[in-house]
Amino acid sequence: MAVGEASLPELHPVAGIRLATVSAGIKTPGRNDMVLIEAVEGASCAGVFTQNAFCAAPVVVAKSHLKQCGAQARYLLVNTGNANAGTGEQGLEAALTCVSAVAEFSGLSSSEILPFSTGVIGEPLPVEKIVSAVPAAFAGLQEDGWADAASGILTTDTRPKGASIRFSHEGEEFVVTGIAKGAGMIRPNMATMLAYLATDAAVEAGALQSILSNAVETTFNRITIDGDTSTNDACVLLATGQAGNSLLTDIACEFGRSLSDAVEEVCLVLAQELVKDGEGASKFVSVRVNGGDSEQECLDVAFTISHSPLVKTALFASDPNWGRLLAAIGRAGVPDLDVDRIGVYLNDTLIAENGCRADSYTEELGVIAMTPEEIEIRVELNRGQSTATVWTSDFSYDYVRINAEYRT
Amino acid sequence: MAVGEASLPELHPVAGIRLATVSAGIKTPGRNDMVLIEAVEGASCAGVFTQNAFCAAPVVVAKSHLKQCGAQARYLLVNTGNANAGTGEQGLEAALTCVSAVAEFSGLSSSEILPFSTGVIGEPLPVEKIVSAVPAAFAGLQEDGWADAASGILTTDTRPKGASIRFSHEGEEFVVTGIAKGAGMIRPNMATMLAYLATDAAVEAGALQSILSNAVETTFNRITIDGDTSTNDACVLLATGQAGNSLLTDIACEFGRSLSDAVEEVCLVLAQELVKDGEGASKFVSVRVNGGDSEQECLDVAFTISHSPLVKTALFASDPNWGRLLAAIGRAGVPDLDVDRIGVYLNDTLIAENGCRADSYTEELGVIAMTPEEIEIRVELNRGQSTATVWTSDFSYDYVRINAEYRT
Repeated sequence: MAVGEASLPELHPVAGIRLATVSAGIKTPGRNDMVLIEAVEGASCAGVFTQNAFCAAPVVVAKSHLKQCGAQARYLLVNTGNANAGTGEQGLEAALTCVSAVAEFSGLSSSEILPFSTGVIGEPLPVEKIVSAVPAAFAGLQEDGWADAASGILTTDTRPKGASIRFSHEGEEFVVTGIAKGAGMIRPNMATMLAYLATDAAVEAGALQSILSNAVETTFNRITIDGDTSTNDACVLLATGQAGNSLLTDIACEFGRSLSDAVEEVCLVLAQELVKDGEGASKFVSVRVNGGDSEQECLDVAFTISHSPLVKTALFASDPNWGRLLAAIGRAGVPDLDVDRIGVYLNDTLIAENGCRADSYTEELGVIAMTPEEIEIRVELNRGQSTATVWTSDFSYDYVRINAEYRT
Repeated sequence: MAVGEASLPELHPVAGIRLATVSAGIKTPGRNDMVLIEAVEGASCAGVFTQNAFCAAPVVVAKSHLKQCGAQARYLLVNTGNANAGTGEQGLEAALTCVSAVAEFSGLSSSEILPFSTGVIGEPLPVEKIVSAVPAAFAGLQEDGWADAASGILTTDTRPKGASIRFSHEGEEFVVTGIAKGAGMIRPNMATMLAYLATDAAVEAGALQSILSNAVETTFNRITIDGDTSTNDACVLLATGQAGNSLLTDIACEFGRSLSDAVEEVCLVLAQELVKDGEGASKFVSVRVNGGDSEQECLDVAFTISHSPLVKTALFASDPNWGRLLAAIGRAGVPDLDVDRIGVYLNDTLIAENGCRADSYTEELGVIAMTPEEIEIRVELNRGQSTATVWTSDFSYDYVRINAEYRT
C-alpha cells in the first residue's frame, strides 16, 4: 500500500555529480543494492545524522570522515540489505574496509569517502560482496544516474522517491536534486531514512551545513510513521560549484534564501513521499496545530496525535473517532491546557469544540472528511500565535504484516 | 486473544461492601452494563484518577464529590457502553442526574455518590436508561457480588479480572478484594481502566489515599498496551472498618505495611491481568531495566521499548529482532548513554552486549526465548543502582482489527 502518485518526477542532473547503481548481491541476487555517488573535486558537503545513541558503524565513520576531510567528501558509498548496525568493533572495521576499496580505486584518501548502510540491524556486513562490486560501480558512474540511484537505495519502500527543482538567480540557472529512502522506523531526529541531495551552486561548507540543517528541521524532522528512530539515518547535501556563481558564504542574502528555499522544497517533497510510502500506509495525514504558546507545544500535540495507535487505526478505518483525537491532545503534556478553547477540524469540517462534539457536526460529515487518501487534522489551541505541522500515515494490517514478517 | 489463564479466582466478600450488576440496556440489550457498589456507613474512600487534560464528566464529578463528602463515599455507580467523555456541560448534567437518582433512592446526599463511565467517547450518556435501572440495582445488592461486577464493568475486555487476598495481623483476619477492566487505551497516569478495591480494615481517609497512591504508582502506572491514556481512568479503594481493628492513621507501622502490601499485590495482579487481556495481545511481556542512574531513566527505557511498534510487532511474530530493541534503547533519551556497557537479555538468554550481538547468541536461542506466551526483556544499563519494570503486550493483526472496527 502507498498513497498517491507512484511515478518518479524528472530528476535533473547536477553538474559535477555522477551516480552508479549496481548489484552487489548483498541480500537478493540480481537486485540493485549498492549506489556510489561521486562529487567533483572542490565540492563541499554537509550532513545530518541520527541522534539515536545506538549509532550504526557507517554513521560513526561518515561523521568522522566528514570532519576529517574538511567537508570535502568526494564519494558516498551506499548499500542496502544490511544496516551494519549493532555490529560493534567488527562493524566499524567492515565499514572502513569498504571505504578503503573506494579510496584505492579512486586514488583518494579514505577520509574523503563516506559510507552509508540500510537494512537489517545486527547482521555482519558482507564486506567482500561490496568490495567486489566497487569496480563495476566506478564503471557505471554517470551524470544521469539519479533515477536508478533512487531505486537502488530502497529497502521496504514500495517505490523510489525523488525531487528536483530549477531556479534562476541574476540570469543564472541552478538546480537542486535529491533522492531518499525509508518506509518504517520513521520519526524525527533524524527521520529514519537516507537522503542525498546535490546542487550545482558554489557554497562554503559552513553555509551549506546551515542550509541543510534548517531544511531538515522543518521537513524530515516533522514526519513520523511509527515513532521509531533508526540507528542509520543520514541526509547529505553536496554543492559542486559548477554553476559558476561566486562562493556563497553567508546564507542571509537573496541568493542564500533562494537556494535555502529550493533545498527545503526538495526535502519537503522527499519527506512527504516517505510518509506516503510508509509501511502499510493507506492515508497521508497532515497534522496541523495552530494557536499554541510555543512551537514546541504545537509539535508535542501534533506528534502525540501522530503516534497514537488508536488515532492511526481509526484513520485506517476512515472512522471519524474524534474522541481519540481529544484524548491524544489531552495527554500531550501541554501545561494548563484549557480544553474548552480547543477546536478540532478534519479538513474544513469542525468536529469538536468546547471539549465536545461540535453542534454542527454529524457522523456523515465526519465520514466524508475521513474518506480521501489525503487528510488534514487541524487543532486550534486558541492560546497563542505559534503553529506547527507534522506529516504521518495510518496504522493498518499491512503495517503489522510487514513488520512481523520482515527478517523471518 | 489473551494470554494465560482465563478463570477468575475466588473473590472473597468484604464485610460492609455490597455489589449489584444489572442490565440498563445502554448499548446491547440484555448485556450487563451497570454496576452499583455500596459501602457501609463510616467507610473511607480513596481515589486516583486520569491525568488526561480531557477529563470525562464522571471523573470531574467523582473527584469533586470525593472531596465534598470528606472521603466518605457510600455508592459507586458504574456504567459501561458509554464513557460520557467529550460531552461538555451536557455530560456533567447527565452524570449528576444519574447520581441524583441513586441519592434519591438511598436518601443520601448526591456528594456521597461517585459516578464512573467507560465505553465510546463523545456520545450522549443515555441517562434515562441508567436512571430506570437504579431500583433494580438496589434490589440486587449482595455481599457476594464481586464476580458478577467484574464482568459487568467490561468493554472490549475478553474476560473479567479480579484478585483477592486474605492476611492476618495480631490474630485478626483481613481481606482485600478488587476488580478491574480495561484492554486498550492503556498507559500510565492512570493506566486506562476502572478498578475498584475494598478492604474490611478500618483506615483513616488520608492513610487510605497514601496506600492507594503508592500501590498505583508501582502497578497500574507501570503497564502499557498502546501508549494511549484514557479520559476516564479511575481506581477506587474503600475501607469499611468492619474487621474491628483500631483505626489505622499512619501507614508506617507493621499493620500499615501489611495492608499496603496486600493492596499493592491485588493492584499488581489486576494490572498484569489488564495487559494479558490487552487488545489483540498474544504475549505478556515484562520489560525490566536494571543498573540505571535513576528510576526515571530505567522507566524511560522500559516505556520506550514497550511503546515501540517495531518491538511489539516483532514480539507478535516471535522474532528475536534484538536490533529493534537496541534502537529503542538508543532513542529513550538517557543522557550520555554508553552503549558498549549495555546487556540485553530475553529471559535468561544474553542476546546483545557491547553494542552488538553477543558472541554466545544464536538465532535458535533467540527463537526459543521468544516462543513462550510470557517473556521477560531485561536491559542491564550497568551505570547505576536503580531499576524499574513495565509490563506490556505485543501488537497484532487483532489490535488493528479491534481498533479499526470498534464503533463502526
